[in-house]
Amino acid sequence: MMKVTEVLVTPIAIPDVPLANTKGVHQSVFLRAVIQMRTDTGLVGLSETYGAKRTLAGLRKLAPLLEGLDPYDLRDLRRRIDAALADAGGINAPTALADHKLTDVVFSAYEIACLDLRGKELGRPMYDLLGGAVRKKISFGGYLFFKFAKRDLTFGPDIMGEVMTPDELVRQARAFVDEYGFRSLKLKGGVLEPDLEIETMLKLREAFPHHALRIDPMGAWTVPTALRVIEKLDGVLEYLEDPCRGMDAMAALSARTDMPLATNLVVVEFEQVIEAIGKDAVQIILSDHHYWRGATGAIQLGEMCRAAGLGVAMHSNSHLGISLAAMCHVAAATPNLSYDCDTHYPWSTREIIKGGRPRFTDGAVRVPEGPGLGVELDDVAVAELHDLYQRAMVADRDDTDEMLKYIPNFVRKVPRW
Amino acid sequence: MMKVTEVLVTPIAIPDVPLANTKGVHQSVFLRAVIQMRTDTGLVGLSETYGAKRTLAGLRKLAPLLEGLDPYDLRDLRRRIDAALADAGGINAPTALADHKLTDVVFSAYEIACLDLRGKELGRPMYDLLGGAVRKKISFGGYLFFKFAKRDLTFGPDIMGEVMTPDELVRQARAFVDEYGFRSLKLKGGVLEPDLEIETMLKLREAFPHHALRIDPMGAWTVPTALRVIEKLDGVLEYLEDPCRGMDAMAALSARTDMPLATNLVVVEFEQVIEAIGKDAVQIILSDHHYWRGATGAIQLGEMCRAAGLGVAMHSNSHLGISLAAMCHVAAATPNLSYDCDTHYPWSTREIIKGGRPRFTDGAVRVPEGPGLGVELDDVAVAELHDLYQRAMVADRDDTDEMLKYIPNFVRKVPRW
Ligand SMILES: [Mg+2]
Ligand SMILES: [Mg+2]
Repeated sequence: MMKVTEVLVTPIAIPDVPLANTKGVHQSVFLRAVIQMRTDTGLVGLSETYGAKRTLAGLRKLAPLLEGLDPYDLRDLRRRIDAALADAGGINAPTALADHKLTDVVFSAYEIACLDLRGKELGRPMYDLLGGAVRKKISFGGYLFFKFAKRDLTFGPDIMGEVMTPDELVRQARAFVDEYGFRSLKLKGGVLEPDLEIETMLKLREAFPHHALRIDPMGAWTVPTALRVIEKLDGVLEYLEDPCRGMDAMAALSARTDMPLATNLVVVEFEQVIEAIGKDAVQIILSDHHYWRGATGAIQLGEMCRAAGLGVAMHSNSHLGISLAAMCHVAAATPNLSYDCDTHYPWSTREIIKGGRPRFTDGAVRVPEGPGLGVELDDVAVAELHDLYQRAMVADRDDTDEMLKYIPNFVRKVPRW
Repeated sequence: MMKVTEVLVTPIAIPDVPLANTKGVHQSVFLRAVIQMRTDTGLVGLSETYGAKRTLAGLRKLAPLLEGLDPYDLRDLRRRIDAALADAGGINAPTALADHKLTDVVFSAYEIACLDLRGKELGRPMYDLLGGAVRKKISFGGYLFFKFAKRDLTFGPDIMGEVMTPDELVRQARAFVDEYGFRSLKLKGGVLEPDLEIETMLKLREAFPHHALRIDPMGAWTVPTALRVIEKLDGVLEYLEDPCRGMDAMAALSARTDMPLATNLVVVEFEQVIEAIGKDAVQIILSDHHYWRGATGAIQLGEMCRAAGLGVAMHSNSHLGISLAAMCHVAAATPNLSYDCDTHYPWSTREIIKGGRPRFTDGAVRVPEGPGLGVELDDVAVAELHDLYQRAMVADRDDTDEMLKYIPNFVRKVPRW
């Protein structure tokens, strides 16, 4: 039986661009952690997850404690994590990821490495360990952002300059659709006044009459504001993501509209799925193997949603190719995933897997068919981005703090309107 | 990649004894189907399930259609079953198993064979394919029945003669506890007048002061009757299984008592878990890989129950060693299984696996550690019981019809009291 002998956790920083959201704006780099899990049989399992302070501390605390783990024994993995992080003090303190249990995030990261090892040992793609693929091409949507022009180009170039008006946003969408072939478009909202975001969506509809359209203001609106937006965007949106803050506000809105409501904020663990069903708070849940207890957890979420008559979509944070591969395997093995997945991928320019950046055709990526995740690490690229991590002096994510560089009197306020 | 080349479905009949329940009484034999799934790599995956008419027809319809199946691709298995049984006419007609979807039952049977193949190919026990074992010894409870003395001994001996009074039932329990070491006891109720069954439970408590006790009248009681029983058995029962018929009756009872209610009748598929949560109809759900979409489905049920704060126990029908092995693997990999499992095993005397009947120590069975299910087929024993199937002239289960041999004026009535 193969056993884990060593776990390497490498924080990396990837040049980012100032994408705006209701909390603030992306920093000059985004942070990821790359995991390499070695076994006594000479295999290396890969994984990629959040690289900010709290996650990194959790991952690092666990790394030496995973020696001897059997990669098939996910329950032993869980036990080791629960035992180590139960009294982790500062690590569990609320930060940007306060709404995701650290234990779930750490479990998720290592679970993917375990599945990668199992697939590599077997010579089978990861989706085979998840019950089999119902699709081999995964469709993603174009993820549109209002953004500033990047001021400091020390760590990397800007992408598409300032985009702060409806017309500029439509141009951004056109560029993405031309380059990637996306068939659906999602706007990260909650940035401009609601009327301007309504105008943006209507202009997107005009420019892309057949694209599925969504907007995600990340809880920036009150229930009356959300109702006003829904009235104006009736027939325009495929679904509305996290218009209001909190389960009860979402439920109050849900009771007053037929617009399907989606979330990755108020339902982030299984207990909340049950609560959301009871309150009829949402109709679609965004899956994400980075915190839904890994790929096996994301598959379970899909099954739970099927049973409850809820839709399943897929959430994204800024990420690189290991996460993209894992997202593809999960999407392949989630039968009732019925919406194009989110991805921040076009907003980065680097890659850490061999062969470079995967190609999007008609907005879709082919699920890697190699063993496990089906990707290999580019050690040189990882070393470069680890070097950037050390130079960039950004150890935590703080979009609000970053916003002050652009808007000195910015005050974070959710809901804002 | 291994592919399925041939699927054999062998119905067998196993001598049974006249165990009473609210529908009637067990027939002279119980029916099982033994599945052998062969691959182009020379492996054979095993499974055991119901052998009555409807299931057998479904299994046989699918058998030739599984050629070329990849045992990893459970979603392809599901597709093939859904396509073949969608318009299956008579097969889907309601019978004893009307409450279990035939597609789920057929899927469950073949899924176990697929997992057995995967475990055999890998050289790992099945529980490793289910996320790992949290326990290696599975505790079962003694399953007590009121029963008639067996009249026709053509196909096999009786076990423990007539048991139709509280005192005789306590003697039955004593014999089981002495032989198997059971630490919990379950009475199949709904057979005698409720007052006699209350008396039985009180006498069991007296005789076994430290055993966990349960009763399962299979919906035989009205809500007022169930309330009366609960009042008398307060502090005596670990939980009360299916006291009333139907989800709404269970919910009505649940609203009026603190007694934990368990079920294997009103919640038999995932959609009903959601309904039961919404109605707060039950507090414990009985898992059973034979209809909960196989072992992977049973594990998902466990996760859903955990999220909803529901308990998990395990249901049994009359079965032999292949099913027992699968039950052990599922129990090993269900962390929140917190009750002793049901099993009819002591009520049979034959076996179809090599090495004969597994041993119970302190009521527990060790999870087989060999590859896959960890059991091998005894071909001679299967041939003998297949021969009995052909001689016994019992092709379907009908406890009500059988009851007329003992009580000529028996009329099935649920609820009866
Ligand atoms: Mg979102
Ligand atoms: Mg029952």
